[in-house]
Amino acid sequence: MTTTLNAQIQLVSRPQGEPTLENFKRVDAAIPELADGQVLVRNHFLSLDPYMRGRMNEGKSYAQPQPLNEVMMGGTVGEVVATKNAGFAVGDKVVGMGGWQDYFVVDASQRGVIQKVDTTHIPLSAYLGAVGMPGVTAWYGLVKIINPQAGETVVVSAASGAVGSVVGQLAKARGARAVGLAGGADKCRYVVEELGFDACIDYKEHRDLKSLSGALKAACPSGIDGYFENVGGMILDAVMLRANAFSRVAMCGMIAGYNGEPIPMSAPQLILVNRMKIQGFIVSEHMDVWPEALKELGGLVATGKLKFRESVAEGLNSAPEAFLGLLKGKNFGKQLVKLV
Amino acid sequence: MTTTLNAQIQLVSRPQGEPTLENFKRVDAAIPELADGQVLVRNHFLSLDPYMRGRMNEGKSYAQPQPLNEVMMGGTVGEVVATKNAGFAVGDKVVGMGGWQDYFVVDASQRGVIQKVDTTHIPLSAYLGAVGMPGVTAWYGLVKIINPQAGETVVVSAASGAVGSVVGQLAKARGARAVGLAGGADKCRYVVEELGFDACIDYKEHRDLKSLSGALKAACPSGIDGYFENVGGMILDAVMLRANAFSRVAMCGMIAGYNGEPIPMSAPQLILVNRMKIQGFIVSEHMDVWPEALKELGGLVATGKLKFRESVAEGLNSAPEAFLGLLKGKNFGKQLVKLV
Repeated sequence: MTTTLNAQIQLVSRPQGEPTLENFKRVDAAIPELADGQVLVRNHFLSLDPYMRGRMNEGKSYAQPQPLNEVMMGGTVGEVVATKNAGFAVGDKVVGMGGWQDYFVVDASQRGVIQKVDTTHIPLSAYLGAVGMPGVTAWYGLVKIINPQAGETVVVSAASGAVGSVVGQLAKARGARAVGLAGGADKCRYVVEELGFDACIDYKEHRDLKSLSGALKAACPSGIDGYFENVGGMILDAVMLRANAFSRVAMCGMIAGYNGEPIPMSAPQLILVNRMKIQGFIVSEHMDVWPEALKELGGLVATGKLKFRESVAEGLNSAPEAFLGLLKGKNFGKQLVKLV
Repeated sequence: MTTTLNAQIQLVSRPQGEPTLENFKRVDAAIPELADGQVLVRNHFLSLDPYMRGRMNEGKSYAQPQPLNEVMMGGTVGEVVATKNAGFAVGDKVVGMGGWQDYFVVDASQRGVIQKVDTTHIPLSAYLGAVGMPGVTAWYGLVKIINPQAGETVVVSAASGAVGSVVGQLAKARGARAVGLAGGADKCRYVVEELGFDACIDYKEHRDLKSLSGALKAACPSGIDGYFENVGGMILDAVMLRANAFSRVAMCGMIAGYNGEPIPMSAPQLILVNRMKIQGFIVSEHMDVWPEALKELGGLVATGKLKFRESVAEGLNSAPEAFLGLLKGKNFGKQLVKLV
């Protein structure tokens, strides 16, 4: 194994505004010898996620910045190809934070750094999506913050994406009305026809607040009780204009402001007028709920009740461009990079 | 009694922007005969509160608008002067929603419309302030939303006012650091020296976000864990720049926007970055907590541990001008109108 080179994508500069391909560089590194307790994992799929944009900045945020000239961090699924750890055998399928590279070495005696997964009823890639971090993110925000009651209306932005698609389906499973926002007629059709949402608004058809608020009024005749925020900006303003008394907003992402654009909330007094609760969260800080969430999500995927879609880029070298596309909404469903 | 006239202040027009004296009119009405179950109360003090500004508007809000050409609604304390209800005797001191008038008639058989109060250890006027709606408002936002832990830092705007003064003292009683914002050196000195806050910032000395944020940094060296919002606008922006992870904002009032001024929240992405919770509330929707809150507040006032200050305008005719002054922060402590 040690003569095989490990292709990596590193971050080599920080974006000024919108990121570009020049922020990334491919490097071929050596694979180190395994020490006791370590395993070598070959990545099959990389996960590309919007949160990675935030980590490309230097500024203070909830997560440490991605260090320059190091491999881009990120979730991966793959297979153990060499092991010096009695708990892992060659051939085991695992999920972990392997980063944008073909291989990674990890001390598997540290609890939780990699997890074995069962691919009998659940495809390996789903552990990066509906049965992984995005799925648990959807679950946490919907169940623990929005907590929809039967008959309530839940709206989610980026509704065809890895998180939003799960939010709406979980809301439907709880008897709520699910309304999505997505970019383009194809995505909206998918959200309603395949995922089973009650309605989906193409935000590209609504360029101003009045138009978008009107579309929300039509799609949510009883107002909005819960909103799962992935985008921010004008969409949040429009939702707040239609929010019911005691509505809840789970703030998961604000991709509209990722490149430093100002995204003010126009009328925060609506939080008071409507007695709203707005709560930000990061799923990695709530590891205690992962078993409960993954149990529900895994069961729904294994039985075909929870549907999801993947955009798969081929090969490590495609990762930067696929990531830039994700930030512009070019993906359709969970964005992955397939390595094997 | 029936030949005595009842002086009233009515709302006769809705303000366009800032309200004026012309929005109000004094009317002398007859006092109706009492029917069975009714009592006649002579108001001793009227309560003037910022929420009344919102009710002067016609638009949809959490409360019904104040009807035109009717007496201004509002809390009062007074004395029963005639009764056809076995539960109330002449001379009973009561708190209720008597409105801006000398007398009111109420069906006292309806539960909760007036409440007898004990003035042995608590002055009658305090039932409109620290041991009344403003006190319970402070208690609810602080205890039920901010829930400060010992060692945390709680900031409150309008800190010398009827609500803010209680927020800080309750926070101190729970072992938190209390930092106020108030307008002017006199109010700030009172907040620290009399009320026992750890620090108070004169917001009039800080005309831009950078200056105010810097003052908050100096006053809150460990950041801000809880914020009780009475004002909105730039103050909220400045607080959010200093907010800690998992901080909580109880949104009680946004007086900065009461006249229709835009008061956008500049950086709502901080809700996510700092995993904040922002929650609006109206104390009248949480009647279940009033007994618990009033028990604590009454005990603290009766034993002299909870301090408060009153601005008392004399006579019913002074109510409109005193109310306009309240909206501009001219009051110092709880604004009352003394009728008897």
